[in-house]
Amino acid sequence: MNALSLDSVVLADNQKEMIILDQTLLPGEVKYLHLSRAEDIWEAIYTLRVRGAPAIGVAAAYGLYLAADQTETDDMDAFCARVREKKDYLNSARPTAVNLSWALNRMERVMEENRDRLSVAQMKDRLREEADAIRAEDIAISRSIGRYGFELLHHGDGILTHCNAGTLATAKYGTALAPVYIALEEGWNDLRVYCDETRPLLQGARLSAFEMQTAGVDTTLICDNMASITMKRGKIDIVFVGCDRVAANGDFANKIGTSGVAILARHYGIPLYCCAPSSTIDLSIATGDDIVIEERKPEEVTEMWYKQRMAPAGVKVDNPAFDVTDHQLVTGIITEKGIAYPPFDKAFARLGIK
Amino acid sequence: MNALSLDSVVLADNQKEMIILDQTLLPGEVKYLHLSRAEDIWEAIYTLRVRGAPAIGVAAAYGLYLAADQTETDDMDAFCARVREKKDYLNSARPTAVNLSWALNRMERVMEENRDRLSVAQMKDRLREEADAIRAEDIAISRSIGRYGFELLHHGDGILTHCNAGTLATAKYGTALAPVYIALEEGWNDLRVYCDETRPLLQGARLSAFEMQTAGVDTTLICDNMASITMKRGKIDIVFVGCDRVAANGDFANKIGTSGVAILARHYGIPLYCCAPSSTIDLSIATGDDIVIEERKPEEVTEMWYKQRMAPAGVKVDNPAFDVTDHQLVTGIITEKGIAYPPFDKAFARLGIK
Repeated sequence: MNALSLDSVVLADNQKEMIILDQTLLPGEVKYLHLSRAEDIWEAIYTLRVRGAPAIGVAAAYGLYLAADQTETDDMDAFCARVREKKDYLNSARPTAVNLSWALNRMERVMEENRDRLSVAQMKDRLREEADAIRAEDIAISRSIGRYGFELLHHGDGILTHCNAGTLATAKYGTALAPVYIALEEGWNDLRVYCDETRPLLQGARLSAFEMQTAGVDTTLICDNMASITMKRGKIDIVFVGCDRVAANGDFANKIGTSGVAILARHYGIPLYCCAPSSTIDLSIATGDDIVIEERKPEEVTEMWYKQRMAPAGVKVDNPAFDVTDHQLVTGIITEKGIAYPPFDKAFARLGIK
Repeated sequence: MNALSLDSVVLADNQKEMIILDQTLLPGEVKYLHLSRAEDIWEAIYTLRVRGAPAIGVAAAYGLYLAADQTETDDMDAFCARVREKKDYLNSARPTAVNLSWALNRMERVMEENRDRLSVAQMKDRLREEADAIRAEDIAISRSIGRYGFELLHHGDGILTHCNAGTLATAKYGTALAPVYIALEEGWNDLRVYCDETRPLLQGARLSAFEMQTAGVDTTLICDNMASITMKRGKIDIVFVGCDRVAANGDFANKIGTSGVAILARHYGIPLYCCAPSSTIDLSIATGDDIVIEERKPEEVTEMWYKQRMAPAGVKVDNPAFDVTDHQLVTGIITEKGIAYPPFDKAFARLGIK
């Protein structure tokens, strides 16, 4: 079986629809949706059928291309107005998802830069090429992170990961799981991957364990609170986690629980690497203290997924979606440009990250 | 409201049945079961309607008393044979539960010691008195642990606890939550309790959050992986956890995840106390390495409680039920005889623990 048989989002060969893997049905059902209407693409982003910052960006870019392609006019002004309207609409699906607006803005910029020299038909091709480029660049970035991470691995290693920063979250390869896919490409079949289930939304159980198992990797699921004993038993040699945003000093925000994993790894002397496309490194943020943590609704903890409510009615619930890991707990930050080691500010400069 | 309005297990006033709170229905329903048949009591222990080592011991003692009381004979030999038979039967409900066999053996010993000088009718009274004594002693032990723990608290403190070592797990007061009940008795109403939900069986969400909320305490539920950020935000001043067994050097086994909480507490400079009846301190065990960890079935992680299976079919699951916390991470061990501080071997001797 092809280790990378799952595709989070691609443009169909007919170039008239996009194909996404409906991640809300995983791990029980592998179902690909063929979407062409902007309303359906909006819904797929809004309901997390496609999720993971890079994958959302790719889906948005293809979504805007399809909306442009469906615009039946030869008048460039009318065309651009219509595309901008669709851009705002798609952007409203997840307003706080940085990659969503980033990809849509990039598509709009290409349109504005070329509107005076292309026909509408040519512009449609140009927008498709840009969406293809966004996807190709994402694959290249993930693959490069995977290559750098792979160099850190030894045969037989046990790898702990948290949440899902795998191929499902990107166009291909992922970030934290990219080193494992590279190892598979290199013919290694002796790595062991441990997946924290990652409460409350269980991305580790539903997605990471699923994609690793699908890729043929020796995969073990654990509850988040089992990471300590799993490390103590000597089963973990290295920790790879993804990230949502990295501050200038190397502090990084990632899925809730990551900072705890980092503290455990430090306690047991296990290296922890943050896998971060350089686009997630935000030098305008001095430290992690300046990163605002999203608080989500209590029902995700007390009710979601469950047959019955699992906590007393009316009990207070804290449900932060992310936490910040102190840079002093990070062995290295793996970017597509190379691995940054402490002190991170100097390392980022040396790698040409601005 | 009475802070201790919940009773895990008591003998009814008519002395013909025991009343247990069915913990499998919590937190959705507070239902007390009136049980008199040995078969029903066996089932209640087996299916965890009554759980927590001390509470199981009390239930078993009352169960054996009721079986004795129902034995209609004036012949002491026939009576004792019948009671021993019921003892073996009740003991089979959870063969690995130390308190179950401990309480039943204690009841049997009382019977053997008095069989030559009491009538059957007198023996029935004596067995009831012994079961009452087991319950009263458990309450006294819990209350004493609570008093010692209470002395460590300050007004407004935030307390983190893991799993359930509260009044539901004992005859009354609990161990880890006993200091909170003492504080309530002292008129304090400004403590804040954070409950780790405690995957996979969610004792923190279902039981600790429920009993603290029922007691009128400011209670907040968090997922296990949120303990790190909760500590980092300064919300936690002290950690109280229970334990299943303490080794001579102070290493202790407790619900899975406890060792991780201890590592986090140490990282953030927060004191962690293990609340341990002296009966759980086993000086025959040198270190925690000698404590065998129970491995439980994968379905608890992947299916139990859930509307649908939450991990891919066939994925490997590690599901250790307990972990061992290194004594170097423990600020103190609170027993009914006083608080042991490191070095624990010397402290145990000073407290008269053998």
